[in-house]
Amino acid sequence: MNALDFHKSLIVVDALQASAWDRELLQELVDGGVTAVNVTLVYWEDARATLDRIGEWHRLFERHGDLVMPARSAEDIEAAKKAGKVAIVFGLQNCSPIEDDLALVQVFNELGVKIMQLTYNNQSLIGAGCYEKVDAGISRFGREVIKEMNRVGMLIDLSHSAEFTSLQAIEISERPVAITHANPLSFHHGIRNKSDTLLKVLAQSGGMLGFSTYPFHIGGSDTPLEKFCAMIADTVEMLGIEHVGIGSDMCRKHSREYLDWMRSGRWSKELDSGEAKSAGGGWPDYPAWFRTPADFPNITQGLLAKGFSEDEVARIMGRNWLEFFRASFAPA
Amino acid sequence: MNALDFHKSLIVVDALQASAWDRELLQELVDGGVTAVNVTLVYWEDARATLDRIGEWHRLFERHGDLVMPARSAEDIEAAKKAGKVAIVFGLQNCSPIEDDLALVQVFNELGVKIMQLTYNNQSLIGAGCYEKVDAGISRFGREVIKEMNRVGMLIDLSHSAEFTSLQAIEISERPVAITHANPLSFHHGIRNKSDTLLKVLAQSGGMLGFSTYPFHIGGSDTPLEKFCAMIADTVEMLGIEHVGIGSDMCRKHSREYLDWMRSGRWSKELDSGEAKSAGGGWPDYPAWFRTPADFPNITQGLLAKGFSEDEVARIMGRNWLEFFRASFAPA
Repeated sequence: MNALDFHKSLIVVDALQASAWDRELLQELVDGGVTAVNVTLVYWEDARATLDRIGEWHRLFERHGDLVMPARSAEDIEAAKKAGKVAIVFGLQNCSPIEDDLALVQVFNELGVKIMQLTYNNQSLIGAGCYEKVDAGISRFGREVIKEMNRVGMLIDLSHSAEFTSLQAIEISERPVAITHANPLSFHHGIRNKSDTLLKVLAQSGGMLGFSTYPFHIGGSDTPLEKFCAMIADTVEMLGIEHVGIGSDMCRKHSREYLDWMRSGRWSKELDSGEAKSAGGGWPDYPAWFRTPADFPNITQGLLAKGFSEDEVARIMGRNWLEFFRASFAPA
Repeated sequence: MNALDFHKSLIVVDALQASAWDRELLQELVDGGVTAVNVTLVYWEDARATLDRIGEWHRLFERHGDLVMPARSAEDIEAAKKAGKVAIVFGLQNCSPIEDDLALVQVFNELGVKIMQLTYNNQSLIGAGCYEKVDAGISRFGREVIKEMNRVGMLIDLSHSAEFTSLQAIEISERPVAITHANPLSFHHGIRNKSDTLLKVLAQSGGMLGFSTYPFHIGGSDTPLEKFCAMIADTVEMLGIEHVGIGSDMCRKHSREYLDWMRSGRWSKELDSGEAKSAGGGWPDYPAWFRTPADFPNITQGLLAKGFSEDEVARIMGRNWLEFFRASFAPA
């Protein structure tokens, strides 16, 4: 079996993409042999606006049902693989949709939202984001939300949370949690990347890390595939093969206006592009080996070239996420 | 002039009341010789729900325009005094109405909201409430909000904020701030009362403290008027006569359901009545000398009996707040 056929045989899971979806982008997922994607619904939106985002996906499912289907469980993802379609898992990059209402955790879970970040860069009602200078950890409301997410089977995602908030969330949560899209700080020193301490605690508690291809998480667009795969090898050595997967953070076709919303919401008069300041606030180019999700076979090939066994590659490319989702998305 | 006539001659300002307003309650304000009240619109409400609360006041003004009138400035308060009516200043006990939208500061300012607390007991998007175990101070959004409140002339109220959040807010704000309703911790050790350190920093920066009559802030309903007035005398000695006033925290006629909302919002499945647990979660009795705002003359009498001069009593009972509002409610 050549590398491409091997790739096509795999369950491929991308634990984070955030694009302005249309048929062309959905086709890229199919072309890249992607089995399931956690798609970002919102960054700063409240409950009502989140319903709009969900409604938009309902229309996409209706129009492009030959390419994609909604997924709320590992079984749905397996069914998508069999049907030759891409399974779409709804995720939130902020807790803004639940506002200050604990009851909205179950409401959004019933609407198919299976993954929620506790914070997005800033202080939320739950905890501190990674751009805050001081981090008080999980709030009183946050403890209730974590308990409720554990109960209904909504996965906690700490990708944009600050360090102490993340450590405390792991401690409070009775179920393993995820960092769906980030890399080790020890690989590249970026604001969104994570300390070895945090990653070890995450893995020891049964959690998962998804490796990001976003240029500011890998040290720039010129970073070669070999270096990305070497980072994966180093992290596997540190955390164990069971605790890693891919979370590409691929973001396509958004307008500049939407990127500004993503970065600054409506909380500041001045645009704050964070790490993207150096790219003039625009979206940086992805590396040549991963320009779209259709390039997913390149990563499989890179991992094989790095010396991972086929079983290890299958785990990294999606089987780990599949089994983790199986455990995480079921009610307690 | 006897004490009652003296009282009736004063500008009397109550920097915080939170009642389920009807004609009887508005009449109590008139009977008590009250010139102006900061009335609480919301505890946990979002922008839309806050518009409902403002609409309810518009109807009250229409129906009971013989008793009350809206006020957005010291001049409005003086006009109310001349007209023999009570001036109503809108206030928020939480920043929930502005959601995560900096633009809503000016929007609510234009609707007559002249006072806003940065937090209500819990972590908000701006800072930590006094019931949080850890206090990281003012968030990135919070810095923007403080700047914007300073610009439009909306007074910052720290009554329900945690200590470090309060100290940092005072440092960041370019205009003096208030604690509209609380007492010194050194008088009574309650969760909502404030340290001497904080109160001294507040006064040194030109801010104001409003003394509360809420039983959990004064050590119980049996606390005699003499003790309340002695606390005022001690605090005046510590902070200076210019920095104190009354913020009774009077709360009348709310249903048990509303009290539960006030305490626990929708952020927890379990009711959390905080300090009111010992009162079975209900509202404790106010002291015999201040059962309703109609009892305001008793406080004037108590202060005179304590030995304050008429000028000092006039300051404490309202003139300090009037001049503070004059400076605080004007745009920068």
